[in-house]
Amino acid sequence: MGPRWKGKGSEAKALADPMSNTVFQLQSSLTQSDAQGLLSGSTVLYQADEEQTDLLNRACFGRPILSAEKDKQWFQFGMEEALYLSYHLNCLKIVDGQDCEKNFQEVWKDMKSQKSTFPEFYIAYRHLRLKNWVVRPGSQYGVDFVAYRHHPALVHSEFAVLVLSKGEGSNENGRLRVWSDFLCTIRLCGSVAKTLLVLTVNDNGSGFVSPSCLDSYSIEERTVTRWSPEQCRENPAKV
Amino acid sequence: MGPRWKGKGSEAKALADPMSNTVFQLQSSLTQSDAQGLLSGSTVLYQADEEQTDLLNRACFGRPILSAEKDKQWFQFGMEEALYLSYHLNCLKIVDGQDCEKNFQEVWKDMKSQKSTFPEFYIAYRHLRLKNWVVRPGSQYGVDFVAYRHHPALVHSEFAVLVLSKGEGSNENGRLRVWSDFLCTIRLCGSVAKTLLVLTVNDNGSGFVSPSCLDSYSIEERTVTRWSPEQCRENPAKV
Repeated sequence: MGPRWKGKGSEAKALADPMSNTVFQLQSSLTQSDAQGLLSGSTVLYQADEEQTDLLNRACFGRPILSAEKDKQWFQFGMEEALYLSYHLNCLKIVDGQDCEKNFQEVWKDMKSQKSTFPEFYIAYRHLRLKNWVVRPGSQYGVDFVAYRHHPALVHSEFAVLVLSKGEGSNENGRLRVWSDFLCTIRLCGSVAKTLLVLTVNDNGSGFVSPSCLDSYSIEERTVTRWSPEQCRENPAKV
Repeated sequence: MGPRWKGKGSEAKALADPMSNTVFQLQSSLTQSDAQGLLSGSTVLYQADEEQTDLLNRACFGRPILSAEKDKQWFQFGMEEALYLSYHLNCLKIVDGQDCEKNFQEVWKDMKSQKSTFPEFYIAYRHLRLKNWVVRPGSQYGVDFVAYRHHPALVHSEFAVLVLSKGEGSNENGRLRVWSDFLCTIRLCGSVAKTLLVLTVNDNGSGFVSPSCLDSYSIEERTVTRWSPEQCRENPAKV
């Protein structure tokens, strides 16, 4: 299943404007303005200027939220997004309510305490973003993330992503352990024209206790599709 | 969501021909012919005469299988169906390859060894059949069973059924343990116009070791639907 572009010209538009460029521009802009995001529960809030609003929307980070202020726009980042901006792109400081900067270790611990599978989810998110996929929450389709080849305005999401854990210290997220779950997920993915991508993250013994596990994990990518006997005959002419 | 009848007149046909009658006729016919089913792996095979073929098809037990014989039709029953015919309706003897009748205890043990969740599945199957629902495998929709108000030729299946286990000795089947699974299942059920019915079977300490647990289990029925804020406003006029 290839990308499903939204209307004519979308593919050309996407090719002319690579996502990696937009993310790089966003990174520069946030770095220049010494951006600070406020950790609030399981989200990080950030007040963006006009240029950053445009860049955040184009790079698909966070959700714009309504407020009475006209020249500034608030954005709400999910945990994975916030950590990617802070510690991978190194362009967002995360602060608490007292404007004190929180270090990577503290944020990691905090986020892990809120969602035990956070380390695996962050690793999966980072893995896909590094390959310039646009990664958004997948709850609408009963999966962990959906991945877009480019901006959702130009293309439908191509992959429905489930994050599984492997290894001793890992947090089992409980998906795809029985056939009925597999069949349910595959059927749903088929009906919304997405390919199921299963990312299995192995902590390799680190237990994901601290961010240092980012040096030692391994990740396996598997796409899962229905097997149709009719399409798998020996003689291709008969298909 | 009510029943979705297939075409005009289907509802009237169903009303005129209650499923309980058909099952009763099938029971009488099988009893009179001293029916014997051959246990073969996880299925039971039965050779039906013309009248029984009609009754089995109308009552939706088993699957007819192709064979070279013209006046006899072979049927393949699933484990739950076979046990329901044998030990609930008491109209089918289950025999092994040497034509030796197997008792309830033996069949139970054998089926449980093939599928650890068999007891819960049988209890759920029996529970719905006792209420005159037609119960068929649900793998097409990633659930354990689907339930029809009447024959599938007249009506679409109304419920997608998941069987869960509760209690110390129970076999966890691993479904609906995380939100993403819930969301996936609900979304799929919605898109195929079925209501998700979760049957939770509690062994009440018996461990489902022997068929005697059929006297002590309990079962909870829950239907699960999406909550739509728009449909749950205080003022119904605004809906």
